Amino acid sequence: MGLRIGIVGVTGAVGQEALRLLEQGTLAIAEIRLFASARSADRSFSFRREPVRVEEIRAERLAGLDYVFFSAGGSVSREYAPPAVEGGAVVIDNSSAYRMAAEVPLVVPEVNAKALSRHSGIIANPNCTAAILATAVWPLHQAAVIERIVVATYQAASGAGAKALAELDAQVRQYAGGEPIEKKVFPEQIAFNVFSHNTPIGESGFNDEENKVAQEIRKIFGEPELGICATCIRVPVFRAHSEAVVIETRRKLSAEEAREILRHAPGVTRVDDRKANRFPTPLEAAGKREVLVGRLREDPSHPRALALFVSGDQLLKGAAWNAVQILELLAAG
Amino acid sequence: MGLRIGIVGVTGAVGQEALRLLEQGTLAIAEIRLFASARSADRSFSFRREPVRVEEIRAERLAGLDYVFFSAGGSVSREYAPPAVEGGAVVIDNSSAYRMAAEVPLVVPEVNAKALSRHSGIIANPNCTAAILATAVWPLHQAAVIERIVVATYQAASGAGAKALAELDAQVRQYAGGEPIEKKVFPEQIAFNVFSHNTPIGESGFNDEENKVAQEIRKIFGEPELGICATCIRVPVFRAHSEAVVIETRRKLSAEEAREILRHAPGVTRVDDRKANRFPTPLEAAGKREVLVGRLREDPSHPRALALFVSGDQLLKGAAWNAVQILELLAAG
Repeated sequence: MGLRIGIVGVTGAVGQEALRLLEQGTLAIAEIRLFASARSADRSFSFRREPVRVEEIRAERLAGLDYVFFSAGGSVSREYAPPAVEGGAVVIDNSSAYRMAAEVPLVVPEVNAKALSRHSGIIANPNCTAAILATAVWPLHQAAVIERIVVATYQAASGAGAKALAELDAQVRQYAGGEPIEKKVFPEQIAFNVFSHNTPIGESGFNDEENKVAQEIRKIFGEPELGICATCIRVPVFRAHSEAVVIETRRKLSAEEAREILRHAPGVTRVDDRKANRFPTPLEAAGKREVLVGRLREDPSHPRALALFVSGDQLLKGAAWNAVQILELLAAG
Repeated sequence: MGLRIGIVGVTGAVGQEALRLLEQGTLAIAEIRLFASARSADRSFSFRREPVRVEEIRAERLAGLDYVFFSAGGSVSREYAPPAVEGGAVVIDNSSAYRMAAEVPLVVPEVNAKALSRHSGIIANPNCTAAILATAVWPLHQAAVIERIVVATYQAASGAGAKALAELDAQVRQYAGGEPIEKKVFPEQIAFNVFSHNTPIGESGFNDEENKVAQEIRKIFGEPELGICATCIRVPVFRAHSEAVVIETRRKLSAEEAREILRHAPGVTRVDDRKANRFPTPLEAAGKREVLVGRLREDPSHPRALALFVSGDQLLKGAAWNAVQILELLAAG
């Protein structure tokens, strides 16, 4: 038999990663259907050595599938996820459209796979920064109960999509060629610069990205009172997000104990060699499914706080890999 | 008459900035003497339209000067600062050699200019990251008493010297030219990457840069108990350091009050436009004497904490400009 799987937004960076991960995986797949906007329809991609044509997305075309990934933005998810569910599919949605809806599980499999047992057709995949952070600190939360997280991020250009990635490439080539640097996608120059994440800013002064990190971590952890202060910053890196994190815990966690806990933690690779000064970097995290964690140290400014540094591929654990993990769990029943 | 001023390490990035700032300043300077290692001796630099030859540094050549800047590393300062003082000069030392010595004032003029009144010939200029942070948060400390600082940095390549700056340039040109990227100066690739500051790491897990930030802020503020947790990260930026900061204060400081305080704060320029999403960036801070401060917001995870983002030119306020400010204060008596 095998599964019938759809990918909506297959031409985007996350869609492409999802296609590749499904191809490399061991799931029995009877049929794969690829969807995109009219603009990209009629392109085709190979899947397990067969060419698959991209179809223009239409509600009726989503009928008869078992699982559909959505990674084409919130408005596409809002329009087409309900008909996909009515047509019999379970939707794994990488957009922010349904993440905070009470009836929709928001899942990082290493953290709350159990939440998958109760859904009404849609499962939400978290924001990339939140998924990476959740994977890294959940084992420490289980051990010592995190009461507060202060996090500053170093987010890759590709987190803003393929055009943003191309802009970083174009700007460094302009620099190398002695040409003026042009800004088209980001409001600030991304080459040789860092800037505050350019999402809208609310009354509190936090931007949407920072609010997502806080809200989503609380939902994923099932800890509505967990305090989180995020500062989200874009850096001139092609791929993989990094995060400087300080957690305050109910009981004191030594750096040694945290190191030991993370040694066995699912989805985590420790990179924490003080002597060789080797720690997580986005360059090393790029292309990896695991989140790299290191620089574990006790914060001298608080009786029960621990500092750490995390790098994770925001297209994999931060998006496509997390979504494929969810699909594999659902398919395994 | 006019002052007789020496610059040791004039061929380095900080020495060059000091020379330029003295040239642009209004101090009456009778004589400027430039020193470097034998390798750079006999080069010459123009100062107020006259060429000045670089001399190889020797202890006896430092006699008879009023003020000598040192920015040639700790070992040069340790060897030549004492003979310069014996020869009658006041030394303003940009290295870390004397910063924590009890008898040596460590000065950010906007914070503790008073400390200049008692010295024994040497004044220390702070670490760049510490000087920028001190300038930004001191006005808030005065208003509400900072009890803890959590800071994550985004430090420019040029903070590691001219060779490191050249390495970032070379690596992006290699990338643009389709060549393999070579690492020579930094242990990790700096182009399109971020990594933990590559200074030695102590028992606590903090690296030297992080320890400097903590120790120096405490000394500059005269607050030996102030708790500081720093994570120092290098980013592919040519010039100017940025810092994501959370301060916890004894009395609650609203974002509005902090904004008002910083509007009038010396050495600070507010860049804090939520509607236009315009905040401090290293690209905007580069070349400026002031420290840019923005993204002021109340931290929802703590009853009395405030988050902010800071960018400052680490060669100016973080080094040469701070040193020239010290000289101007000393010269004014």
